[in-house]
Amino acid sequence: MTTRREALGLFGTAAGAAFLGSLLPDPAAAEQAGGGLTAYGVAPDGKVAGFPWRYMKLDADAVAERAYKGFLSGHCMYGSFFGIVGELAEKYGAPYNNFPFAMMKIGAGGMADWATLCGALNGSALAASLLSNDPKPIADDLFNWYQSEPLPSYHPKQTPRVEITTKSVAHSPLCHASVARWCEKANVKSFSTERDERCAWLTASCAKKTVELLNAQADGAFKAAYPVPKEVQECRSCHDKGGELEDTRGKMDCAPCHFNLGTKHPIIERKKI
Amino acid sequence: MTTRREALGLFGTAAGAAFLGSLLPDPAAAEQAGGGLTAYGVAPDGKVAGFPWRYMKLDADAVAERAYKGFLSGHCMYGSFFGIVGELAEKYGAPYNNFPFAMMKIGAGGMADWATLCGALNGSALAASLLSNDPKPIADDLFNWYQSEPLPSYHPKQTPRVEITTKSVAHSPLCHASVARWCEKANVKSFSTERDERCAWLTASCAKKTVELLNAQADGAFKAAYPVPKEVQECRSCHDKGGELEDTRGKMDCAPCHFNLGTKHPIIERKKI
Repeated sequence: MTTRREALGLFGTAAGAAFLGSLLPDPAAAEQAGGGLTAYGVAPDGKVAGFPWRYMKLDADAVAERAYKGFLSGHCMYGSFFGIVGELAEKYGAPYNNFPFAMMKIGAGGMADWATLCGALNGSALAASLLSNDPKPIADDLFNWYQSEPLPSYHPKQTPRVEITTKSVAHSPLCHASVARWCEKANVKSFSTERDERCAWLTASCAKKTVELLNAQADGAFKAAYPVPKEVQECRSCHDKGGELEDTRGKMDCAPCHFNLGTKHPIIERKKI
Repeated sequence: MTTRREALGLFGTAAGAAFLGSLLPDPAAAEQAGGGLTAYGVAPDGKVAGFPWRYMKLDADAVAERAYKGFLSGHCMYGSFFGIVGELAEKYGAPYNNFPFAMMKIGAGGMADWATLCGALNGSALAASLLSNDPKPIADDLFNWYQSEPLPSYHPKQTPRVEITTKSVAHSPLCHASVARWCEKANVKSFSTERDERCAWLTASCAKKTVELLNAQADGAFKAAYPVPKEVQECRSCHDKGGELEDTRGKMDCAPCHFNLGTKHPIIERKKI
């Protein structure tokens, strides 16, 4: 277990000292720094001093509980981000507790209720980005897990507002598809307490999964368990980078939207999920 | 024009002082605060002390230029967020320049190259959330503008890597659809320099639009100019909150994915966009 002293000690390097110095609201220092594009601790090699914020291994269940409670006060994106970074803030104080967590509340309902990227994924990916030198494999595994696993997978320790017994596979990282599939399977309305509670459990599930991946990466033991599915790779082989068509990009499961490709398409018609 | 002194003076309130205090990396203070769920300046009424960070009106073109340059070093989400919050950091120093901007780089390509929510929108919405007491109407107008306007609408001041002459309507806030439509219209590949340059201009366009909306809100003159389209409202009247089915959620344009609703659907078949 890393102690608070060890955690604070990690800022003992020159870069760390410069970073902590930048946290001091000293107008003279800010003036001296010039405030320009080069004033944010970016070295000539492109590395940012004091970034990412150091990750110390966390208890995944404690993070899940914090994410669940975070959802109840600030919804999905806030919940997952606060579940992870808030746990570091509680254990180690600064710089983690200086983060303006409330900004993540806008991500609720797939960003401002637009039902695009699931807020629990958005918050988890940003937390990984803040805390890892190599966050993209974590986001990839998290997103592929999300669109292929029956979720939610975490049950909160406290008595929930309502018991959730239905799990569904989202087949997508998008809020719209994730919510619609779960509602259909559970046979409940999309603005019911049941759906809201399901999203709270889902938020806890995502934060927990992210921390398991961060912990594995910290141990040097990270290995992607959920690669991009073969079917998606097949689509990408023509449509994504280096493909004959190279006319789009992305790693989302294609079939949920493109289920009706018809006979003109070289690949057999995909079954509607 | 607000001066640096005035900007710093705004933290002269009790709440502001408490907030600035929280920026000091003082382990004793962090210990005293307890570090728990209530240690982040959340008052009993749910308001967060020192949040949102105060917005001072910005020059929209200066923000667009910064966003464009930000894209070149950190892609779309970083570009739009740094375009807005970085401009405040340059003018006013702390707390804006304490933000760990580099965490936004993960949002490139619709979050970790998944092509979900356009990173320029993700970064813009999060910047609005950090800086506005009422960010949701800003996100709504920005997203509706994005999915209905021919974009990119901003031309950088410096000589671009390649001149972009094609504008397209995304019909969606999703990276995947936005990129695919533009590539089809421009007849270029999705990983070409042209497409990358288009996304840089688009990032500048989104940051500029967001700041125009923030400026209007700061003047008490904000009025949504891009409401949710009538067709989407028609779909939502059955499928969204309060509708007979209430089986999903969202404000994205429905037709680009649900163009093949067939005869069983009460609404006439929508034309494929």
